Amino acid sequence: MVDLPVTPLLDTVSTPDDLRRLKPEDLRQLADELRLETISAVGTTGGHLGSGLGVVELTTAIHYVFDTPRDRLVWDVGHQCYPHKILTGRRDRIRTLRQGGGLSGFTKRSESEYDPFGAAHSSTSISAALGFAIANKLAGTPGKGIAVIGDGAMSAGMAYEAMNNAEQAGNRLVVILNDNDMSIAPPVGGLSAYLSRIVSSREFLSIREMMKKLARKLPRPFHQAARKTDEFARGMTMGGTLFEELGFYYVGPIDGHNLDHLIPVLENVRDAEEGPILVHVVTKKGKGYAPAEASADKYHGVQKFDVITGAQAKAPPGPPQYQNVFGQALADAAATDDRICAITAAMPSGTGLDTFAASYPDRFFDVGIAEQHGVTFAAGLAAQGMRPFCAIYSTFLQRAYDQVVHDVAIQNLPVRFAIDRAGLVGADGATHAGSFDVTYLATLPNFVVMAAADEAELVHMTHTCVAHDSGPIAVRYPRGAGTGVALPDVPQVLEIGKGRVVREGKTVAILSLGTRLTEALKAADQLEAKGLSTSVADLRFAKPLDEALIRRLLTTHEVAVTIEEGAVGGFGAHVLTLASDEGLIDGGLKLRTMRLPDTFQDQDKPDVQYAEAGLDAAAIIDTVLKALRHNSGGVAEARA
Amino acid sequence: MVDLPVTPLLDTVSTPDDLRRLKPEDLRQLADELRLETISAVGTTGGHLGSGLGVVELTTAIHYVFDTPRDRLVWDVGHQCYPHKILTGRRDRIRTLRQGGGLSGFTKRSESEYDPFGAAHSSTSISAALGFAIANKLAGTPGKGIAVIGDGAMSAGMAYEAMNNAEQAGNRLVVILNDNDMSIAPPVGGLSAYLSRIVSSREFLSIREMMKKLARKLPRPFHQAARKTDEFARGMTMGGTLFEELGFYYVGPIDGHNLDHLIPVLENVRDAEEGPILVHVVTKKGKGYAPAEASADKYHGVQKFDVITGAQAKAPPGPPQYQNVFGQALADAAATDDRICAITAAMPSGTGLDTFAASYPDRFFDVGIAEQHGVTFAAGLAAQGMRPFCAIYSTFLQRAYDQVVHDVAIQNLPVRFAIDRAGLVGADGATHAGSFDVTYLATLPNFVVMAAADEAELVHMTHTCVAHDSGPIAVRYPRGAGTGVALPDVPQVLEIGKGRVVREGKTVAILSLGTRLTEALKAADQLEAKGLSTSVADLRFAKPLDEALIRRLLTTHEVAVTIEEGAVGGFGAHVLTLASDEGLIDGGLKLRTMRLPDTFQDQDKPDVQYAEAGLDAAAIIDTVLKALRHNSGGVAEARA
Repeated sequence: MVDLPVTPLLDTVSTPDDLRRLKPEDLRQLADELRLETISAVGTTGGHLGSGLGVVELTTAIHYVFDTPRDRLVWDVGHQCYPHKILTGRRDRIRTLRQGGGLSGFTKRSESEYDPFGAAHSSTSISAALGFAIANKLAGTPGKGIAVIGDGAMSAGMAYEAMNNAEQAGNRLVVILNDNDMSIAPPVGGLSAYLSRIVSSREFLSIREMMKKLARKLPRPFHQAARKTDEFARGMTMGGTLFEELGFYYVGPIDGHNLDHLIPVLENVRDAEEGPILVHVVTKKGKGYAPAEASADKYHGVQKFDVITGAQAKAPPGPPQYQNVFGQALADAAATDDRICAITAAMPSGTGLDTFAASYPDRFFDVGIAEQHGVTFAAGLAAQGMRPFCAIYSTFLQRAYDQVVHDVAIQNLPVRFAIDRAGLVGADGATHAGSFDVTYLATLPNFVVMAAADEAELVHMTHTCVAHDSGPIAVRYPRGAGTGVALPDVPQVLEIGKGRVVREGKTVAILSLGTRLTEALKAADQLEAKGLSTSVADLRFAKPLDEALIRRLLTTHEVAVTIEEGAVGGFGAHVLTLASDEGLIDGGLKLRTMRLPDTFQDQDKPDVQYAEAGLDAAAIIDTVLKALRHNSGGVAEARA
Repeated sequence: MVDLPVTPLLDTVSTPDDLRRLKPEDLRQLADELRLETISAVGTTGGHLGSGLGVVELTTAIHYVFDTPRDRLVWDVGHQCYPHKILTGRRDRIRTLRQGGGLSGFTKRSESEYDPFGAAHSSTSISAALGFAIANKLAGTPGKGIAVIGDGAMSAGMAYEAMNNAEQAGNRLVVILNDNDMSIAPPVGGLSAYLSRIVSSREFLSIREMMKKLARKLPRPFHQAARKTDEFARGMTMGGTLFEELGFYYVGPIDGHNLDHLIPVLENVRDAEEGPILVHVVTKKGKGYAPAEASADKYHGVQKFDVITGAQAKAPPGPPQYQNVFGQALADAAATDDRICAITAAMPSGTGLDTFAASYPDRFFDVGIAEQHGVTFAAGLAAQGMRPFCAIYSTFLQRAYDQVVHDVAIQNLPVRFAIDRAGLVGADGATHAGSFDVTYLATLPNFVVMAAADEAELVHMTHTCVAHDSGPIAVRYPRGAGTGVALPDVPQVLEIGKGRVVREGKTVAILSLGTRLTEALKAADQLEAKGLSTSVADLRFAKPLDEALIRRLLTTHEVAVTIEEGAVGGFGAHVLTLASDEGLIDGGLKLRTMRLPDTFQDQDKPDVQYAEAGLDAAAIIDTVLKALRHNSGGVAEARA
């Protein structure tokens, strides 16, 4: 157990109401203690650290100035919400972050009234905050919508769509741009803070509004010129033209770690009669914790660590991560195929593409948080002869579903999808689970959909993608480490739509898609011990199905079970559909489909999640035995 | 048959190569003839007219100046591509537009090398054109990517994502902003054309580039100031700051109907060494055809019409359109429930929401082409107590799939989805078919998914949405007119997850979801005539299923068939899954699922499409008889 930090002032603050009773001059100490507590908590649990440390002062200032929870505060993505959780009644559970039964690593409506909107995927905050603002406006009730969004999240189209629609909210909408990448403006000092304070003041805004009204009465060219002059005068010193073009009143940039700058500007913004206002705050990721500040990724996501040294717990040595196996296989293939390109949406290392990027920088494209563009860009590349791989997590590929359908599938273009984080994902919970991709892809004409049973299969399947030139193809694989099988010296190109029998038996057939194969084999051993001879097949393809193999397995065993790490409508449903189409069920067929349950599962250890989902060896055995016992009066019994 | 227009010059031009042999002074006549031919063709076929008429000169100028098809021209959405088709070798088939076996109403790769990328959904063109540009850059082959995109399409996030990524293309990417809504700038004259020509000239660009390089060597504040001054000087006269902020060189606005302005500017853009360039062209929708210019919607989409008078063929009197039934039902409900809001993504009349908008303007939100934002905005409204309806076509809801999953389903928020154009859609073809919504929604926990069998059911289901306060709910219904049933005086709130038996029989059970019910009843009549007593049920809910009713129907009939207007993985798959989960198939079950085929179907009359899909009465009978005849040796035979 680590020593808890000494936090005398923070100990007096359990909600924002307590915070608001403090004197402004006490806020610096409060923020310092909040930072210590955040570091200590994440040291214990692991999780996202750098983002939270970057917004300690901002979190303090927002809750100090605004009337949360009546003012609805929406943290974009939610990686940065741990200090917010500490200040909003959840400090007592902060060391359960991301654990089974503990606090979510993101904002979550069911946790607190201070989390009015859950997050985890990027760039939703402005839309949601606008919803809050407009709902209050319609109801005539007080309350603003406040979105805090990072510069990276601003690259997603939906943030732009939301800004385009924001004007109607007037002063009920506040967007705080948390610029921690220095991609929009360099950090700045007192002059800018002074100017920000001036231009956000009620007096300045009134004069400006008067000028605007006056200008509107002039002929159009003057109006235009007046607007431009105003923009120019402010833009020269301050930047932010883009936001002004989208209808925001821009204030900033200001130093997001200086409470003496933050508080008065936010107070002005709170009291402004005009809006919507965008406040540009410059922060440092990992701020105030030397090991994080010194690290390249600013401790974005960390394992448990030693607070004094910053040394992170090392993962025990073991099999390679799926993402890295994919990345290496793709880089290998690219050595002899210069049509191969790789596209990531702001996840170069999470997708394992950093290896590829290092070797083939010209053919590597990080499009930012822009999955929609990424997929259609890939379709364009493919239409001109390139062979792009879109490496996107299952849950984020949902962002580009229309592009997958409209630009790739309908045109039958050879775009390849490397779908990481398929299935349950552990500590990130429901928002990051990759539960739906088999269902939403295998329903599309022209698509080939594969799932890798282990890391060797992933190597083969990556090369199968490379060789498949006639249309779209996808391979899905889970988060985390492989099973430990040897990686192939020579990768194979698999025959499209052919599965493999891993174990031959007579009574029970387990048809597996993906990495549940390990559990299927465990179950087979135990069934065998009970005298039930068991076949296990790795179907490899959810689409096209290996119809011959499925037909054989279903008709020569007493009971058959499909298993997959996906929701209803996927692999099992396709097997059932085949069995029904061909009339295999007419004469009686003991066939069961095992799939994710019809719930969104909370975070926990993956093994616990799969047990809860009923997708482990024990559940397979249970399903088989129940099916065998089920008295249908049909052919299976007659045969037995 | 209408008289064909006299087009002596156009008759000499069948490809852009022919066009490029003309003298510049002949282009005016060519454009005039192209306009006449476009009007004449659409008069014969119906289709999109206003958009095409707006770009007659632009189409002519682009093909005259650029090296198509080597320069890859991508028309956004594709509504405006008819003049392009006429100029690119397809004039002989232009009067087959949108007919079965004829030309597509959109660009289509399989039709012509001049259509390098198919379109139909909005805002994909910049991403695709960037793909072409980068692929050529990587291969070292010549060829630009040229996107022509309307001002409306610019409101979609993916256009912004693409612009954010465009800089790497340099002068290989040209974006032509076709501003026909005057939403970005008013039409302009000679001065702006002159300035556009100057600023797009190689000399000016070189000087500017030199200045920029110089500025980079100065300390940052000077650099910033220099950039702003340049922007300001150009922006004062020209606008376009937004695009400059996104890394484009902005040229315009220029009059898109004046070839003397267009040609030299496009020539400069073609020859520029810098880029990417955005050319802002101002056009008038419906230009040059008086009835279109005089019409409010500029003949956006028209029936066949009389070319002289512009009078459109009237639809024969008949049942109301589904969209209007929905719109009226929602407006009725809103009278007594002021929490109801309505959201459309740029389709106020297509979704029938114009009625609602007229009565409740404060609660009506047209978010532009921004489905992603629209859905999350709705989630925000719902989280603050409102009850929003997102009225979005099935195919366009794909754009917001992640928002549906992440912001609505996971949070279990009461957002209602009115999903129009579900199923096959006739002349718009594969890109607009609503084939996948049942599959991609019914796989989600927390969702209720309904399909209306007729317009009376749609009224009930709209009110069922209104009454369902505990989570997300969707109702799907097709394009076009209802079946002619009487609309209810008093709408019912349906019990969630309960179907209805429409006809009781003994031997055959047809389980229908949605408007195939009519065909199911037809089939039942004919089966009855063959001595096969037939039950027909309208299940109403794809999720949750009416398990009791399904159980009863499956176990008390010799053969059961499901039918739906959707792809695999949907309603039929859920019924099969239930039958398998409960062991109903163990003893033998003649169950078949009828669904859309595993292909993207081309445009045709809906009846023809459904026959081709195997989803009409004849196909139902065929499926039933084949199933009955199928010799499985199982219980069904034993029972017979």
